[in-house]
Amino acid sequence: MIVARTIAELRAALQSRPGDGAVGLVPTMGALHEGHATLLRSARATDAVVVMSIFVNPTQFNEQADLAAYPRTEDADLALAEAEGVDVVFAPEAAEMYPAGFATTVSVAGPIAETLEGAQRGRAHFDGVATVVTKLLLAALPDRAYFGAKDAQQVAVIRRFVADLGIPVELVVCPTSRDSDGLARSSRNTRLTPDERARALAIPRALQAVRDAAADGVADAGALRARALEELDAAGIHPEYVAFVHPDTFAPVAEVDGPVLVAVAARVGRTRLIDNTVIGGA
Amino acid sequence: MIVARTIAELRAALQSRPGDGAVGLVPTMGALHEGHATLLRSARATDAVVVMSIFVNPTQFNEQADLAAYPRTEDADLALAEAEGVDVVFAPEAAEMYPAGFATTVSVAGPIAETLEGAQRGRAHFDGVATVVTKLLLAALPDRAYFGAKDAQQVAVIRRFVADLGIPVELVVCPTSRDSDGLARSSRNTRLTPDERARALAIPRALQAVRDAAADGVADAGALRARALEELDAAGIHPEYVAFVHPDTFAPVAEVDGPVLVAVAARVGRTRLIDNTVIGGA
Repeated sequence: MIVARTIAELRAALQSRPGDGAVGLVPTMGALHEGHATLLRSARATDAVVVMSIFVNPTQFNEQADLAAYPRTEDADLALAEAEGVDVVFAPEAAEMYPAGFATTVSVAGPIAETLEGAQRGRAHFDGVATVVTKLLLAALPDRAYFGAKDAQQVAVIRRFVADLGIPVELVVCPTSRDSDGLARSSRNTRLTPDERARALAIPRALQAVRDAAADGVADAGALRARALEELDAAGIHPEYVAFVHPDTFAPVAEVDGPVLVAVAARVGRTRLIDNTVIGGA
Repeated sequence: MIVARTIAELRAALQSRPGDGAVGLVPTMGALHEGHATLLRSARATDAVVVMSIFVNPTQFNEQADLAAYPRTEDADLALAEAEGVDVVFAPEAAEMYPAGFATTVSVAGPIAETLEGAQRGRAHFDGVATVVTKLLLAALPDRAYFGAKDAQQVAVIRRFVADLGIPVELVVCPTSRDSDGLARSSRNTRLTPDERARALAIPRALQAVRDAAADGVADAGALRARALEELDAAGIHPEYVAFVHPDTFAPVAEVDGPVLVAVAARVGRTRLIDNTVIGGA
């Protein structure tokens, strides 16, 4: 396994690969868990060359405290990557990605980027995501790039700018990976106390309650939202949002009449968690 | 010569080219003149496959009247391209470049994009340029892209975002092409009346006066600027700007002590013209 610290090293590593097999990229911020491993296995099963990036992108953090506290576990991450058969790890310093004089931003306008996470974390969040993912895609020029469905809005933003700019890559979205108790896997979960972790289970329970009610024929988003809030409230969780939106445009939905993304964000203790599900058909 | 109207057609045309020779891209807004021909010849001399794009990009026009009046001469443009040995012309409609739902912008911050043309034409101008050139570069994925030095600030903006995003292309900047009387070639020149054209020659004369004074040892930008304004004033031209800036950053320069870009923009009649020169060494 090659560890590249610069874009030039990454490109050299990819050029020296034998043959012209397909390249799969799994972008991560490190602190790898089983969810990342699932993405790596999808890539390994499909692509001849698997590249994983590790970069805790400072420009997408709206809170310096969150950036400072973000878990960094590079040795363990490299060991996991090696065990999953990764060919090349791209792990640059911030100065490699944003050298002096850097002045370019890729941004997506409209509800996709401006509501929910965009509203809570500020406009700069998805600008930071779009800019760094553009850089990663252009550095590796992969045939496929793999993302987790947990970050549904991030996926929608990436899908939008990849299509708009014509970046030649296929996006593969893998189902949210969950612990056996249902909690969506997240690098931030390590910050939860045992009590907080128990309370956090109200988030997947709330999504399950929405799915159950929708399956029972409840179509009114307000009624479905009330079901979710009930579950969260019982655990003392006051969510930042419980939103019902179109999965691609993130336009709000009042009545479930086709696929609807149900997205939740909530702080449990000091840790901010997100999760989502899709109701109303494929 | 293949004429591609869609990005898919362009990519198919490039994939079906025999061998793996280098691709050169010459982006244009059509209304081709000898200046464009010079760019095409540079590409033809260097690259195995020459692609020329023709796209009057609506998002970079701040005035609808300027967009509506921009000369469109596709039949003549295709004939010139064929005569210059172009392999593929990419001439999309606006709906191909900006389909419904398009929401992405590439933008460059700082004096490069915000002063001079950025100030006169509005922030959206260089956002429009950066976004469309990104799309063109990602559609053709050329080894080299060719631009004229007349659009010095555009070149600086493109150089900035290409480096920042890591778009894998070499930028080739060709010297400004001039008519025998010294006027910089521009598609907009066709709109000048004979009298306006004669007056417009004060612009290259003003730049020559600055070069002469600089060669005589005048280093104060204010004094050099006064020489330029003298020439323009004598022809009744009141410029939008006569600026002395760093050629890469576009930071203003007070004293010539190294390469300085001298940039002029002026309306002659209803036609807006720009020109520039570099003084103070390579």
